Amino acid sequence: MKIIVAKSAGFCFGVKRATQMAFEASEQHARICSLGPIIHSPQVVEKLTEKGVAVIQHVENIDSGAVIIRSHGVTAEEMQAIQTRQLIVVDATCPFVKKAQEYAARLARDGYAVVIVGEAEHPEVQGIVSYAEAGKVTVVANATEAAALPRLNRVGIVAQTTQSFENLRQIADICLEKCQEMHVFNTICDATTVRQNEAREIAGKVDVMLVIGGFNSANTTRLAQICRELQPRTHHLETAGEIEPLWFEGAAAIGITAGASTPRWLIDEVIDRVTQLTGPPEK
Amino acid sequence: MKIIVAKSAGFCFGVKRATQMAFEASEQHARICSLGPIIHSPQVVEKLTEKGVAVIQHVENIDSGAVIIRSHGVTAEEMQAIQTRQLIVVDATCPFVKKAQEYAARLARDGYAVVIVGEAEHPEVQGIVSYAEAGKVTVVANATEAAALPRLNRVGIVAQTTQSFENLRQIADICLEKCQEMHVFNTICDATTVRQNEAREIAGKVDVMLVIGGFNSANTTRLAQICRELQPRTHHLETAGEIEPLWFEGAAAIGITAGASTPRWLIDEVIDRVTQLTGPPEK
Repeated sequence: MKIIVAKSAGFCFGVKRATQMAFEASEQHARICSLGPIIHSPQVVEKLTEKGVAVIQHVENIDSGAVIIRSHGVTAEEMQAIQTRQLIVVDATCPFVKKAQEYAARLARDGYAVVIVGEAEHPEVQGIVSYAEAGKVTVVANATEAAALPRLNRVGIVAQTTQSFENLRQIADICLEKCQEMHVFNTICDATTVRQNEAREIAGKVDVMLVIGGFNSANTTRLAQICRELQPRTHHLETAGEIEPLWFEGAAAIGITAGASTPRWLIDEVIDRVTQLTGPPEK
Repeated sequence: MKIIVAKSAGFCFGVKRATQMAFEASEQHARICSLGPIIHSPQVVEKLTEKGVAVIQHVENIDSGAVIIRSHGVTAEEMQAIQTRQLIVVDATCPFVKKAQEYAARLARDGYAVVIVGEAEHPEVQGIVSYAEAGKVTVVANATEAAALPRLNRVGIVAQTTQSFENLRQIADICLEKCQEMHVFNTICDATTVRQNEAREIAGKVDVMLVIGGFNSANTTRLAQICRELQPRTHHLETAGEIEPLWFEGAAAIGITAGASTPRWLIDEVIDRVTQLTGPPEK
């Protein structure tokens, strides 16, 4: 059996940094929690819970101690509430997300109508939105939504860090027709594109594709979608325990990739389980 | 014979303003000249010469009196030389061109690599270029030239006022792939697009198309090109005197448009001549 594991599978820079900060902080603070799950990996969150890091959904429920800000960031209001409550802040916001928040704030301050390219419901986007001034910001998911925007004089654009460049390009294209001045910050993180391109390449040449990552992770779900378009025998799984031997029937090659919030040990467990079921990998 | 005259034929806002300023100034100043031809219409320039407005090519050849800055604008260095020589300035630079100069200067000052969408040899573009800082500005005529640009961190874009929006869009598209931040000022003047669209519409439904304007006028030459693609029987002419009766053989409908620097009286002379040759226009 041939097994191809994507080089870009797993933790991106921001997630790796956030996870490390969380584990380190769990050693330093007796009373510690994270505001929402630190990353979209139930398995990592569980390990942190064992280390005493509770997951709390609302700032009002945190009285004292340290609070970890997750990689996706939080809203300006939540950050304000944390400071008001005099909690110790462990800010694990991905530096690329932080940049997007800062650019959104700057564009709004400079009087631009701010367009955020992304998914309105995603916590990262909700965070970015909160840094732009109210009434001046619109979240636009795709070209169709961009086409529905009114005519605007000055448009400022930032993107959710995991968006595709093609989507940003199409939306910028449409905005340029609607304005006199357009200021775009390309805040897309390459890691997503690199991971997606490698997944496409692998899915195109294997018989079964495994995509590992939280079912609540948007980037893993998207990764599975991309692979499924090229290889219908694609499975999105969280852990090795979910693997069924039938998946590999008649397959000569298996591809493996993983979302940005999937730790290495989960990937290794999947590789081990596949090897166990299908025999040692071909050289 | 049916004659369709384009509503958008002739003087644009900037040319009309420049011509008026020049004629008014010719009454006020005994010693007056224009730096280069005030607009690209030899017939208007001739009328101004009769009024005592000499056309001088170089600032060094002007000793005293008033100098008219043509609608296309001049370079920052020429403007500086005019001020040093203590000449009276009649600045007839088109306000839209002035804006493009100001934005180019601002983008260069703000540290952007400045891209000017336009024709490098055009006096308007040379003027705009001169307002950006040396070494930081590139003139890009089309998508192919844009694709040859190196990777840039921060790109600022302005356009020659007579460029097509489609060209600006394509170049902005390519620049966005090459940078982290892109700041675009759409300095294109609608008059050109409106005139070109109307010309297309008329050329598609007549048997002969006449395009009036200076042979040295870039926008008239482009207008004639556009019409010729739809109607091979297109003639670019400067004056009614050039019209040949053979042009209209077998034609049932004639279209007429004119470039941005063509005065109304030249258009009227052409209409009169056509009527004379083909009979009164149909209602």
